[in-house]
Parts: sequence; structure tokens; C-alpha cells
Amino acid sequence: MDTSKRIIELKSFMEKNNVKASIIINFENQYYMSGFKAITYSRPVVLVVEMEQTSLIVPALEENHAFSEAQADRLYVYYEHPEKSDKGTSYLDHVKTLLSKYPVGTKIGVEFHSLSIKVAHLLEDLRLELFDIGEKMAIMRYIKDSQEIELIKESGRLVSLALSESLKHTKPGITEMELDQYGNQTLFEETSSKHPDATLEFFAMSPSGIERSVMPHVFSNTRKLESHDIIIHSRQVGLNGYRAECERTFFVGQPTEQQKTAFQAALEAQLTALEVIKAGISAKEVDNAARKVFQEAGLEEYSIHRTGHGIGIGLHEEPSLRFDNDLILQEGMVFTIEPGIYIPGVGGFRHSDTVILTDKGTELITEYPREMRDLIF
Amino acid sequence: MDTSKRIIELKSFMEKNNVKASIIINFENQYYMSGFKAITYSRPVVLVVEMEQTSLIVPALEENHAFSEAQADRLYVYYEHPEKSDKGTSYLDHVKTLLSKYPVGTKIGVEFHSLSIKVAHLLEDLRLELFDIGEKMAIMRYIKDSQEIELIKESGRLVSLALSESLKHTKPGITEMELDQYGNQTLFEETSSKHPDATLEFFAMSPSGIERSVMPHVFSNTRKLESHDIIIHSRQVGLNGYRAECERTFFVGQPTEQQKTAFQAALEAQLTALEVIKAGISAKEVDNAARKVFQEAGLEEYSIHRTGHGIGIGLHEEPSLRFDNDLILQEGMVFTIEPGIYIPGVGGFRHSDTVILTDKGTELITEYPREMRDLIF
Repeated sequence: MDTSKRIIELKSFMEKNNVKASIIINFENQYYMSGFKAITYSRPVVLVVEMEQTSLIVPALEENHAFSEAQADRLYVYYEHPEKSDKGTSYLDHVKTLLSKYPVGTKIGVEFHSLSIKVAHLLEDLRLELFDIGEKMAIMRYIKDSQEIELIKESGRLVSLALSESLKHTKPGITEMELDQYGNQTLFEETSSKHPDATLEFFAMSPSGIERSVMPHVFSNTRKLESHDIIIHSRQVGLNGYRAECERTFFVGQPTEQQKTAFQAALEAQLTALEVIKAGISAKEVDNAARKVFQEAGLEEYSIHRTGHGIGIGLHEEPSLRFDNDLILQEGMVFTIEPGIYIPGVGGFRHSDTVILTDKGTELITEYPREMRDLIF
Repeated sequence: MDTSKRIIELKSFMEKNNVKASIIINFENQYYMSGFKAITYSRPVVLVVEMEQTSLIVPALEENHAFSEAQADRLYVYYEHPEKSDKGTSYLDHVKTLLSKYPVGTKIGVEFHSLSIKVAHLLEDLRLELFDIGEKMAIMRYIKDSQEIELIKESGRLVSLALSESLKHTKPGITEMELDQYGNQTLFEETSSKHPDATLEFFAMSPSGIERSVMPHVFSNTRKLESHDIIIHSRQVGLNGYRAECERTFFVGQPTEQQKTAFQAALEAQLTALEVIKAGISAKEVDNAARKVFQEAGLEEYSIHRTGHGIGIGLHEEPSLRFDNDLILQEGMVFTIEPGIYIPGVGGFRHSDTVILTDKGTELITEYPREMRDLIF
């Protein structure tokens, strides 16, 4: 993916704000700006954007990787073997070298949400001034370009396929983790056969039973599915780093009357939000529309999270479809739509789908039946 | 897992340093101190340790989860639905409430490596003084207690089993991701049948071919294995959050003479480090012992990373078996032993095993044959 336009946009923002260099620590932003993604960041990676050049600071064991994948003008390497230790053993050595040329008081762009005070102290020692570029980075990532959209759409297809395979194997006695694994298997096979030289991020969780399904975010465990369980199967797939999400609430055997009522409310809230969302309205209008359904059903106190969130490189990213977000939605934004309710003693209820905002309205890129009749196994 | 002793130790450290409260942001440290682990931290979680009480600040959708799993005296929840928004919509609201009672100049413990300047600015506004507890937290995690050791040992068994299953399916034509998936499948089944109500973290990567195997850390992709490939299959498993690692370098068909030489050097370096490591010697002695093997083979310039690292809650954690680390090793520490060399045009070579330092020397908790004759498929 070509990241050069993004660098140009950031530089123009820097120029406007008299920022001479930016330090990007957040690894999602690094991937967005340079195409480079490490597996672990226990050895820090730093992207430095200056007017004349971009530099990536990496540990020695990422040198070949960065050389082959990163879009950066210069690579600075720090070492952990004695033969090269005189060239620097910490990322901070290189940050210091790159920035110490700037006069006292120069404005340096940093992400306030991600920059550790370890690095902040180094910049303060150099008597540089910190300027927050975190919001600018988030805003740049709001609108996806055509290459990003293409990957997200294919992730939508893959995640729907994997979800469908997992649900197909629902039966009492298998564990949450085994349920996930069926979909993973299909996902790996399908991606292997269709996408040469692609990477895949994948995540699934399937909290089952009344007590676990009321926790919106818990890792799948080895609890075995039982008759009359309610389950929320939740999945994300990221092809080459770009994600889509699909989630369904389903039952092993017949639900109770209370569960039926709650399920219908969550379904209706999702359908309403899917119908309402489009470019030109505000984020909170979408959340309000879904919330109204819960209010009418007298279930609003159980609707404890926003209706959806941006998705892309991030598992969750801005903008947030939240009750207090006035942002006006635009074409090219991608959202999950997933109003949920979690009722102690009854269960958790949430479907999620991913939509792209287009000039014609929305494009739904995930699919699986949503009605109760199709979700009883 | 009972975390109360850890809280007592931290409080005693705080008392000694006149620190009145500590803010723990790093999620590994949070799990270590409270038993609570979220799936995503896009909504921040904060653990606040004060002399009188511990408090966990969580988003509304983690409220049930934290209530059932966290060991904390008090739970503070921030909300994203309008019905409860007057009780706080940001974690910062609660941090402020908890800390504003302290007089100007009070010392507050924070992790310099993890604390964002967003939170640091809040503390500065309250005119509190920051004191680094990051190193203390790392040191506390050096030595594993008996419950931790038990989980790590079982993760050692599970990771070896999964690795063995992946290697068994090696053949030209399958992708790196498919190779990983065979082991994942077995891992899920075995964990499901042996460990009720357990969670599992799992990670595998299998860079294959000469060009990819020289990159120590890259995600598996959909490259298909070919005859005469060299592959490094790398795995971690974390049962209930406690990890072990096992890695093997192997071949599809006969290796070249250069590959044989490099393989033997890497194998010998690993065996040497496994023999040398014990409580009472320094971390760098282990690294030096492995490096000496590479030096004698004239391959030292390709040995670009440390010989191993601590492992536990962290994928990588302190202490580091690195050339410049004078730390004396102690019983109860757990390490990966994985000296590696990465030679452009020849390939990457690294086995990794996990060992526990005991009063009798070491206990090796991962297993798979290491000799070349067993690693040609």
C-alpha cells in the first residue's frame, strides 16, 4: 500500500502548525504511515517524520523486515549484540540524534495518548515543545481510500464465512474455543487458497451461557456449550491488516420468553441503526436511533456501550457512534453496527455487522441471517 | 490466582519511597496485580493502589467482567450510555477524583514506560510528583510463584504438543498459515479436554524460505512451502495468561552445506546456553556462552538478538539474557533459550525452549528433537 499521500498530508499539517518533526509511536499509526508492522513492540519502533525525510528506528532483528516492507527514507537500527553496540543499543539513542539538531523550543509532534513519559522526558531534556498530533492521525484514518476499502471488503467476506462455519458446528458438549476453531480453520484455508503472500489477523470470542454472555468482552474459554445456552459469537478478520467484524447472538435449543423479547429488541435496534446510518448525519444520531428502540422496550439501562465504532487497521478506531459524538459522518468511513444489551439473569444480545458509507448510502460487507428462526441450533 | 501478596509487596515499596498511590496502566502489570485482563484496551483500564484500598477503573462494558474476576477493593465505572453519563464518561474523571485528595507535591507511582502523557498531564495539573514504579513491577515479576510455575509448565507441554503437530504436517504446497493451523487445532482440542474454564493465548509464526526466515519476527503468511525450504516455526501458548515458548528450525528436503553448518552452530549455541544457565550466574554469562559458539564458527555478525528473555504473563519480559545485563539469575525465574543467526542468502536458524531455574539447576519444560536428522521433512 502506498503511504506517500499520507506522509504529504501530515507534513502539510505540520507546516501549518509550525511543527518541525513528528514522532509516531502508536503501532497502528506507524503501519498507516509506513506500511511497517512488527509482531511485538517489546523492542520499541519509532517513526520520525521530518520535512526532508522519514526515518524508522527499529531493533536489529527487524532490520531485514523493515528493509523489505517499510516505506521510509532512512532506517536507524539499534543493536543487542556486542559487535555493533557502539552504533546504539536503545531506540532513545536514535531519537536523540535525530532531534538534537533542533533549536530549543522547536515544536515536535507526538501522540499524547501513546507517547510514554520515558520519551517525553527525553524531549523535555532537549527542551523541545510537545504538540499533539494524535487527533490528526485519528482523523486521517477516518476516511478509507480505495485500497483500504478493497481489503476491508474482502475481510468482510472472510469473517462472514468463518462465522458461518463456526455456527454450523454448534452443539452441546463442544467448548467455546472449539466453536471458534472451526471458523478459524475455514478462514485459514480460504485465505491460503485465495490470497498469495497475505497476512491475516483473526480474533474470535464466544462467551456462552447466561453468566458469560452478559460480559461483552471476554476471551473464549473451555466452558462446554449446554442445552438452552445463549452465545454471542464475535469475530474480526484483518486481511493485510485491514479489518471487518461480524457477530451473532444464537441459541442452543429454544430461548425463554424473556430472551426472545430482548433478542428482538437488539435485532430491531441493529436494523434501525443500519437503516439510519449514512454520510451527512451525526454519529450520535445513529446511536440515538438504536437507543430509542431499547428505550421503547424499557431496556435502555442494559445498553451499556455505544452502537458501533470505526474499524480499519484498528480493532476499534475513531469515529465512535456514541451518544455524545457530534461528528458528521462522511463517505469512505467504515463502521461496525452493534447495539447490545446485557441483562443479568437473562443473557447478552448483540449482532454486529460492518458497513461502508458510500455516495449511495451504505454498503453492508458482512452477512449472516439475523432473525431468531435462523439462530436456534 | 491470589494477588494479595503482590499488593502487599508493592505497598511496602511505596511506603519505603513515600509514594501515596500508584497508577498501573500496563495491562500485564494489571493482570499480575489484580487478576483482571480485558480483551482490548481501546477503552482504558486503570488500577490504582493506595495504602487503604485498591481500585479498578473500567468502562461499563467491563463492569460485570471485572466484578467477577478482578481482585480489587473498589470498582469505578465510566459510561458511554446517556442514562449514567453523569457518573463519568472517561477514565480520567475517576483518576482525578481518586487523586485530587492528595496534597500538592505528593509522590504518585507510575510506570514511566507505559504512562501516556495524557495521564501525566492530569497528574501535573493536580501538582502531584511522578515516581517510577516500572522497574519495581518488572522485578516483582522476575520470580514466579508456585501457581505461576504450574501454569507455565502446562503451557510448556501444550506448546510442545502443538509444535509437534504442525511439524508433522510439513509438506510442499501448504501455506505457512496452514502449517500453524494444524498445531492450533490440536492445542484447542487438548486444552478443551483437559482444562475446564481455562483461557488460552496462542501465537504461531512460520517464516519460510531463505528470504523470510532471515526475518526473526514476521507474521505467517500465505506463502506456500516449497522443496528445499528452510522454516522457523515459532510458538507461544499461554494457559490462563501464563506463557511458554517452543521453536524449531526445520527443512523441506535436504539442506545445503552452508545451511548445515549454520544449523549446527545455532544448535550448539542453544545446547551450550541450556547447559550454562542456572541461578547464581549473570544474565550476560548465558548470552556470552552462546555468542562464543557463533564467534568460533565465524558467524557472530549474524547473531543479532539476545540469547533469550524472561517469559510469563509477557510474551517477552525481563530479565533479558543480553550481552550487557549484569543481573544475577535466581531460582524461580523462567527463560526462553533461543540464540539465533540470520544469514542473508542462507536462511535463519533458531530453536527456542523454555526453562525454569530451580534449586537443582534447570527444568526444561518444552520438548521436541533438536538434531537435524529429526528436522528434515
